[in-house]
Amino acid sequence: MNIIPLTKIQDIIDRTAIETLVQSQESGFISYSQGKSVVPPVGHLQFSNPPGECHIKYGHIITDDLFVIKVATGFYHNLVAGLSNGDGLILVFSAKTGLLKTILLDEGYLTNIRTALAGLIAAKYLAPKKIYGIGIFGTGCQAKLQLKYLQAGLKNFNCQNIWIWGRSKDKLQTYRQDIEPLGLDVQLTTNIEDITENCNLLITTTASKQPILTAALIQPGTHITAIGADSPGKQELDPQIVKQADICVVDSISQCFEYGDISYSVKEQLIDKSKVVELGNIISNPMLRRNNDQQITIADLTGVAVQDIKIATLINEIVEEKTLVKS
Amino acid sequence: MNIIPLTKIQDIIDRTAIETLVQSQESGFISYSQGKSVVPPVGHLQFSNPPGECHIKYGHIITDDLFVIKVATGFYHNLVAGLSNGDGLILVFSAKTGLLKTILLDEGYLTNIRTALAGLIAAKYLAPKKIYGIGIFGTGCQAKLQLKYLQAGLKNFNCQNIWIWGRSKDKLQTYRQDIEPLGLDVQLTTNIEDITENCNLLITTTASKQPILTAALIQPGTHITAIGADSPGKQELDPQIVKQADICVVDSISQCFEYGDISYSVKEQLIDKSKVVELGNIISNPMLRRNNDQQITIADLTGVAVQDIKIATLINEIVEEKTLVKS
Repeated sequence: MNIIPLTKIQDIIDRTAIETLVQSQESGFISYSQGKSVVPPVGHLQFSNPPGECHIKYGHIITDDLFVIKVATGFYHNLVAGLSNGDGLILVFSAKTGLLKTILLDEGYLTNIRTALAGLIAAKYLAPKKIYGIGIFGTGCQAKLQLKYLQAGLKNFNCQNIWIWGRSKDKLQTYRQDIEPLGLDVQLTTNIEDITENCNLLITTTASKQPILTAALIQPGTHITAIGADSPGKQELDPQIVKQADICVVDSISQCFEYGDISYSVKEQLIDKSKVVELGNIISNPMLRRNNDQQITIADLTGVAVQDIKIATLINEIVEEKTLVKS
Repeated sequence: MNIIPLTKIQDIIDRTAIETLVQSQESGFISYSQGKSVVPPVGHLQFSNPPGECHIKYGHIITDDLFVIKVATGFYHNLVAGLSNGDGLILVFSAKTGLLKTILLDEGYLTNIRTALAGLIAAKYLAPKKIYGIGIFGTGCQAKLQLKYLQAGLKNFNCQNIWIWGRSKDKLQTYRQDIEPLGLDVQLTTNIEDITENCNLLITTTASKQPILTAALIQPGTHITAIGADSPGKQELDPQIVKQADICVVDSISQCFEYGDISYSVKEQLIDKSKVVELGNIISNPMLRRNNDQQITIADLTGVAVQDIKIATLINEIVEEKTLVKS
């Protein structure tokens, strides 16, 4: 049985080709959308003093020999005490013997990576052919990772015109410093129009509880990947944007009708549910994708357990291969 | 963060006073019956080829600073391949910060121990004052542990008249060999009446799916602890036994109305639900216990997450104390 600490996991991710990571995640989305995965309801524990939560996501892909359990905690008062605001680990078991194979002590890192990979995959299949500008809303960890993974994996990535929006000038400056290793020149703004006028690939990564983007601002041909609204109560897009979009993509239809940006449009009956397509189907069926550069497309990503399953089983595979080589 | 392997866990259990283990478990049963614990529904994954299952039990006691997640798998075809028929581990987190404190790689061992402790606790509060004979049904791991823990912790334990019932003479012989370290002289039988005639403390630990014990066999004054029927479909006691019992005790009323031996009597409306009492209340309220040595009493134990929570947090506490001493 392998116990893999965070530094080792980071090292494995850094050494793994982006194509390998993307392909593994894509196969997970396809399995999910083809009903080839078993993903029971998420387990929850809620704490009040101090406020905190624990989520248990688990499941397996029917054709895989492994199953996965991910535990993640969030205790936002920790930051005051100088602690990380959450923790987490992933357990990988054999689906043939039930024996524990690997414990990934990732502290939530792999959730960040698989979320960034989902953003890259959405852009790969939905962004217009010519990307004249990339705009990122938010200055947190995911805002940086989305840019890093787009640069690493998006063939039509345009590094000439990258805009970052945030409410705080300090945080924008910190963002610029933090992404220095990427060698990218980014423009910082607190003005939303700077982004909507200069960019046709937008990624929203904020913790907002009300719309940041309104329909009137969105130019024809824009693709928006909405990452931030990953639990009930969060919202980044005006429901009218969803209404006017030509293609509405979600990671999970059932989940995105419950929460996430598209849920508001569904609940207000602004859009026909049948218009919504899963990312797994976009990946496997080119007919469902954008067919011209004037269409507005949206990908609303709330996070599904198959992403965790695939990244954990990939790491497990790499670890086991190395173990084999060693012995 | 501590990672504790099985051998270390076994060592800690062996070195911990039985009174400490019992007291910790009793406080768990009391918290549960007083509504001071949060125990969400068990998470399940089912596998078909080969058949197997995974259970995730989790929760916390409201007044505790820790919460616990237990994962257990069962793959019964493993035995053919010479592998253990299951695996398991317990995660202990801080309920104040969400940080992972301890991983107990117990491989299911602590579940066996807490189940044996529950049997001891049931006997402590429900067995007649004078135990003239102890009868155990079954020859598996739990049949041995129940005897071991009764010997270790039951004040009125009677080592003069111990009977073991099994269907297989070979397994009965193996049982005798395996418990040699206990230094007890046991009588082996394939005849149920040998036990019901000679014993007034009975413990059933089989995987039976139909009643082993019938009502006509049970002598006045007998206490029965039913351990085996811990999931839907399993049954060890004739529902008429439950009907004629003076006191019916369960670990969890809600769970034991769903499955376990008492559930059959409830579903057949043989007994009034209000007659059923939780073990936590038996421990905290002496008025609810046996008041003479002619009463028939039953304890139906299906296993509740507070038992896992308490044994895991106790081990965590012992580990952390040792860590403090070291540093």
